[in-house]
Amino acid sequence: MSAELQNDLYLRALNREDVPRTPVWVMRQAGRYLPEYLKVRKQAGDFMSLCSNPELACEVTLQPIDRFNLDAAILFSDILTIPDAMGLGLHFETGEGPKFSNPVRTAADVEKLPIPDPTDSLRYVMDAVSTIRRELNGRVPLIGFSGSPWTLATYMVEGGGTKDFAKIKGMLFSDPLTLHKMLDKTAQSVISYLNAQVEAGAQSLMVFDTWGGVLAPANYREFSLRYMQQIVDGLTRQADGRKVPVVLFTKNGGQWLDIMADTGCDGLGVDWTTDLSDARARTGDRVALQGNLDPSVLYGSPESIRTEVQRVLDSYGTGPGHVFNLGHGIHQFVNPDNLGVMVEAVREFSTQ
Amino acid sequence: MSAELQNDLYLRALNREDVPRTPVWVMRQAGRYLPEYLKVRKQAGDFMSLCSNPELACEVTLQPIDRFNLDAAILFSDILTIPDAMGLGLHFETGEGPKFSNPVRTAADVEKLPIPDPTDSLRYVMDAVSTIRRELNGRVPLIGFSGSPWTLATYMVEGGGTKDFAKIKGMLFSDPLTLHKMLDKTAQSVISYLNAQVEAGAQSLMVFDTWGGVLAPANYREFSLRYMQQIVDGLTRQADGRKVPVVLFTKNGGQWLDIMADTGCDGLGVDWTTDLSDARARTGDRVALQGNLDPSVLYGSPESIRTEVQRVLDSYGTGPGHVFNLGHGIHQFVNPDNLGVMVEAVREFSTQ
Repeated sequence: MSAELQNDLYLRALNREDVPRTPVWVMRQAGRYLPEYLKVRKQAGDFMSLCSNPELACEVTLQPIDRFNLDAAILFSDILTIPDAMGLGLHFETGEGPKFSNPVRTAADVEKLPIPDPTDSLRYVMDAVSTIRRELNGRVPLIGFSGSPWTLATYMVEGGGTKDFAKIKGMLFSDPLTLHKMLDKTAQSVISYLNAQVEAGAQSLMVFDTWGGVLAPANYREFSLRYMQQIVDGLTRQADGRKVPVVLFTKNGGQWLDIMADTGCDGLGVDWTTDLSDARARTGDRVALQGNLDPSVLYGSPESIRTEVQRVLDSYGTGPGHVFNLGHGIHQFVNPDNLGVMVEAVREFSTQ
Repeated sequence: MSAELQNDLYLRALNREDVPRTPVWVMRQAGRYLPEYLKVRKQAGDFMSLCSNPELACEVTLQPIDRFNLDAAILFSDILTIPDAMGLGLHFETGEGPKFSNPVRTAADVEKLPIPDPTDSLRYVMDAVSTIRRELNGRVPLIGFSGSPWTLATYMVEGGGTKDFAKIKGMLFSDPLTLHKMLDKTAQSVISYLNAQVEAGAQSLMVFDTWGGVLAPANYREFSLRYMQQIVDGLTRQADGRKVPVVLFTKNGGQWLDIMADTGCDGLGVDWTTDLSDARARTGDRVALQGNLDPSVLYGSPESIRTEVQRVLDSYGTGPGHVFNLGHGIHQFVNPDNLGVMVEAVREFSTQ
């Protein structure tokens, strides 16, 4: 039996129910800007060793909840666990970000890609989810997540990070059928991965489409949104007698919020380049909105942080359906105290 | 006396006059993807030596005109010439992009910034402009350009390229008055720089706002657009009895095209994340539109390049006011033959 949820503001806001104040959490809230995280990271060794150790992954997941009293916890993991489980050989080169030893380049490579069994090669993630859920003990809901198929495919084809997306777009424009096969397999993998997270205890889900925003609109619909739709359609939407809300987030996708809302997801992440008032007008209150303070505001003074928090709250306006967050992940070199100022301001200004 | 202009399709399209076919040029058309460029670059030594040698800058400016018969030439130079002339000590570290030895960090630094005399410390640029104009001999119009004040300030404060914009946004949120003083001085510098380019022979102008798209909407209006407005208001708009059209381009600025059109500029650059049909609807035919093929299309097959060119032309639709271009600069590792396929397709498909 799971402990009863003591703070369900996050889940209620995603259902666009009335809440006494705006819930707040922060993308990458467990991470390198926190000295307590760096300590555990050092203990674990490298980044993937931390992800694959359920006890330590649980410890860093809870750190920002303890420090800032946030309204949701998010599984500490990486979006590249699925391609790693497909056998692509994920490793991190110092100062260079993630790399794959076996990138996917041809139709034959795609043919060979397995759909990982989440209870086997991704078992360590499920163990982290159930450990965190147990240790949270009902304080706040736990968010599970995955990368979007397009975003995962980007890394799988490029073999790592990229600035020009030459290989994945070369495939998109020259051999779209092969790319579609790869995206379909990846979408199937994401569905079983996220459903297993719900099975293990995740109470809400988020799909990160970090690279959808580098596509032209027609290409976005065909190669990114279409597979997020497949995911939304394939997910378990109910657990423990409660809805499991799903949030989609395309970085730099402000122009596509209306078609993203059409997928039937519960919420949309919004980056800071779109006003929440515009986002709300475009999505017609069909979804909750999550965002969207510019993460760089946290480099400013406490006064300016409070001003900008107020601006985001005002931009959303009255009525239910807002989850406060940054518009992207918190930066590594931010002073954690400034995040504290932000969280307090959200609480203070949004309390009815 | 300048030679009479033989091909004025570009200028006429920017004035939204009827043209027999859509004119085409390409951002960074003189550059590293061309073997003939690499040869001259090697001869010049480093990048700034090439920019500051009017004969060689002229030679590389004309190379893509000779090879592809494009409809406009653009001055070969760099957006960082102004901060360099302000005494910031521009240099290029191998594999690291531009750096400034003396970044601008404090109110005192801003106070000391001079407004460069374009006929003195930027004389080499004006010499390049007049040399190119003479050597073009009326084949096609010559475009002069500058970075936007916000984009220049980004490099001036960060001291080089950046991924997180920590220092410039720290200044924006903590000390906006100092940043405004800096942007005003930079805007004044850009105005005198661009007017001197027109004096030296530039027939059209473009302002590149590479980093406006990293701002929240309210910050974009206050810190980037406002200073592009100041520039539009301060420019010489007529030369040789002909209008000198001005084009503004904010990368990732698709959501702000309507307020950009309000500046009174003649054209807007549009990146590939916005459909030209949407862009046109939002700007209400007040401006010409320049763009917007995804530069990565040039990694694809000739067939897919032709398909995507047709898609961009169809997206703009009928009627005057379209200049074909990529949605951003051409990539370094593109096969030049693929650009040839693109240019031929634009000619073929757009001919009435």
